[in-house]
Amino acid sequence: MARCAKKDAMTLRDEYLKKRRSDAVKTQMHYARQGRVTEEMIGVAKRESASPQFIRDEIAAGRLVIPANIFHAGLEPLGIGINVSCKINANIGNSALGSNIAEELEKVKVAVRYGADTIMDLSTGPLLNETRAAVIQASTVPVGTVPIYQALERVGGKPEALTPDLFWDVVEFQAKQGVDFMTVHAGVRLKHVELVKSRLTGIVSRGGAILARWCQEHGKENFLYTDYDRLLEICRKYDVTISLGDGMRPGCLADASDEAQFMELDTLGELTLQAWKQDVQVMVEGPGHVPMNQIPMNIERQIKVCHGAPFYVLGPLVTDIAPGYDHITSAIGAAIAAQAGAAMLCYVTPCEHLRIPNLEDVKQGVIAYKIAAHAADIARQRPGARDRDDRMARARFAFDWEKQFELSLDPENARKVHDEGLPKGTTHREEYCSMCGEGFCAMRLSKGLGLDPFKKCPAVSDNES
Amino acid sequence: MARCAKKDAMTLRDEYLKKRRSDAVKTQMHYARQGRVTEEMIGVAKRESASPQFIRDEIAAGRLVIPANIFHAGLEPLGIGINVSCKINANIGNSALGSNIAEELEKVKVAVRYGADTIMDLSTGPLLNETRAAVIQASTVPVGTVPIYQALERVGGKPEALTPDLFWDVVEFQAKQGVDFMTVHAGVRLKHVELVKSRLTGIVSRGGAILARWCQEHGKENFLYTDYDRLLEICRKYDVTISLGDGMRPGCLADASDEAQFMELDTLGELTLQAWKQDVQVMVEGPGHVPMNQIPMNIERQIKVCHGAPFYVLGPLVTDIAPGYDHITSAIGAAIAAQAGAAMLCYVTPCEHLRIPNLEDVKQGVIAYKIAAHAADIARQRPGARDRDDRMARARFAFDWEKQFELSLDPENARKVHDEGLPKGTTHREEYCSMCGEGFCAMRLSKGLGLDPFKKCPAVSDNES
Repeated sequence: MARCAKKDAMTLRDEYLKKRRSDAVKTQMHYARQGRVTEEMIGVAKRESASPQFIRDEIAAGRLVIPANIFHAGLEPLGIGINVSCKINANIGNSALGSNIAEELEKVKVAVRYGADTIMDLSTGPLLNETRAAVIQASTVPVGTVPIYQALERVGGKPEALTPDLFWDVVEFQAKQGVDFMTVHAGVRLKHVELVKSRLTGIVSRGGAILARWCQEHGKENFLYTDYDRLLEICRKYDVTISLGDGMRPGCLADASDEAQFMELDTLGELTLQAWKQDVQVMVEGPGHVPMNQIPMNIERQIKVCHGAPFYVLGPLVTDIAPGYDHITSAIGAAIAAQAGAAMLCYVTPCEHLRIPNLEDVKQGVIAYKIAAHAADIARQRPGARDRDDRMARARFAFDWEKQFELSLDPENARKVHDEGLPKGTTHREEYCSMCGEGFCAMRLSKGLGLDPFKKCPAVSDNES
Repeated sequence: MARCAKKDAMTLRDEYLKKRRSDAVKTQMHYARQGRVTEEMIGVAKRESASPQFIRDEIAAGRLVIPANIFHAGLEPLGIGINVSCKINANIGNSALGSNIAEELEKVKVAVRYGADTIMDLSTGPLLNETRAAVIQASTVPVGTVPIYQALERVGGKPEALTPDLFWDVVEFQAKQGVDFMTVHAGVRLKHVELVKSRLTGIVSRGGAILARWCQEHGKENFLYTDYDRLLEICRKYDVTISLGDGMRPGCLADASDEAQFMELDTLGELTLQAWKQDVQVMVEGPGHVPMNQIPMNIERQIKVCHGAPFYVLGPLVTDIAPGYDHITSAIGAAIAAQAGAAMLCYVTPCEHLRIPNLEDVKQGVIAYKIAAHAADIARQRPGARDRDDRMARARFAFDWEKQFELSLDPENARKVHDEGLPKGTTHREEYCSMCGEGFCAMRLSKGLGLDPFKKCPAVSDNES
């Protein structure tokens, strides 16, 4: 039954998309500005407990995007913007050194299961088109790519051999496949290249480094910048959301918030306006590695310079000394960024800086970022954000272990860890946790004080999902 | 040789402590207020790259403590306060349900190895005195306890059976053993008990719950509050630092920053002044579970209400929905707390709320908190705080993998994770990481731009330790 229902929904969506394909301009921003509420907007409104009109107005203002390519039939659309819940992205993808399509599809499954809102396929290895097609087909969440990776493959890995025509071919090919959002480093300018020479780690964005090399070799402005209108044309045709890449993002704390980073940001602000003129949806990407005390300033500056376009940040890492634990160093920065107004957080896995993530790394990265995004939603006092936490609190006080596991971000793991603490041969879960034992359980003791946790907040029933 | 040198240092310290034992008052605060610079202050000054006079003045003002019992001979003293680097504490200890002395000593070793600045022995199981003696002997860092646990054991786990005399006996016994700091819940007052009745999770501090039960059963004020001068007398004799426990700390986000919490804080402020009158060193403990947006306010309020006494916070957790990952939920809160001025962070392990930590949990907790404390030191722009990060950045740009591993918080793990990504049969580490592979390495590409990472910051040599 569930399968049939899903198939029906997909068929319905397919028919809806077919109709939309005959429109001259297909972007959500275009419809929103015409005052039209699309099916996607209604879906997003439902997820966010907002009105469709509110979602439409946010899109029209550029403060919210719905990355939903008209060729991604299996998508369940979602919104990314400062006035809706914070989203998280999981990067997957093979490299020349490893992974295969089945493995990548497993990563998609695990990422979505633990809460990834979008997936980026960053493959640089073999079978690029096949992997991407499979990922898009398997993914119910928006799929993003960085087309310059494939373009570079096509010219044998030599940045200087890239040509605009070849690049736009790749972009259009991927758009036709159904890619929902694409990172393009159109803000990397010839004049920026000089600015990174005083940095400790130069350029750490792969796309940024490729285009800086191209600019320098040819002594010319970045063709992504000069030909930007060709990108907008493709995006209008398929409703691809642009994710303006930050090729000049800092690769260490020492390089954060420098001239190269902020001059590029100014360019990204210009490119945002240029896209909006063509009704193309835009997100803006951000750093990277930033000391905690500089994070809110970075977010506020982006919001101002980029006119409220959703900010999609990578971490940022708040220290450089913990390779192997960078899901934690960066979840700290990500939570602060989201509290300050970042709309989407790109996860970092424990193996960042060391190797490409395996399935377990993907899971660990997603959970760390789900924590960061959720904590920030609570801190921003979004309506209902704390409900699940309150239900957990009640389950704890009631020693309802099954409910606690169920409410956990990772129920299987919570159950496993708890049960490891049970005395050997026991399976019964008592009215105390295996941390304190019976006599020392504070909540058990404080129950004797006549407390009743269910008196408070009567509006939030314990059975809400 | 190293062993002999250590023995000599210990003998010297033993002789120094023997001399001090004949002083009428033995506290660092007493000496500081007399203008005297002790050996401990000199040691702390060296560690913090500060002058001994500065350390002395901070102690005299109550803003810094050196928990150093005159009977803890193997201690390498350190300072805890807002104007020195942020410290982290690791809790160890058995419960009725598990662990033994050898295991606890292993936890001490692992905790100190990965950077714990202090250890609290929270044992509630068998062999309490023997475990504590072994932990103090094995530990080069200050050791803390919560004496009410042992007191409760002695009365068969019945809070109402506790008597003041029995409690003070336990405190003096532990002080004689060399415990450097003790958590006492002297701020839990009879009048506070009523206030927790509207909470979701009541009282979650074990000491707090025990004393609230005692107050309620006897209809009397907490004897730790009424007899507080007896505590000060013992602390003056052994230089035990008081850690004023927050028995009313919130156990979930919904209960954070409520009346019960802040009324207790007011009492802790009074008790701080009362201790200082007797030259007794004081830290103040804090929550627990707090939404991100309330954390800086909590720290600022404590600093004001407690007259600058060092704030020692537990986490706080910024969401309640991630049991199994609470080292991460709380490291986010801890980093923000430390940036706002918390002096010491009590770690939380991945198994918080589920069972007592094993060796691996201790390691994971310590590393997460080392990250939080270090990130906050950088954010507070403490002199030299970022040096190690900058060396890591240079090592990354130079593809010096050995140096990167060496500079990591967990070198073995960084090396292991990196090497897992090497192509099968390879052991050679190339000029790219196993994340991107050769052609896509941004730093390798950006080297072609003529960048030289060693030009910047000539004052920081790459060989600094």
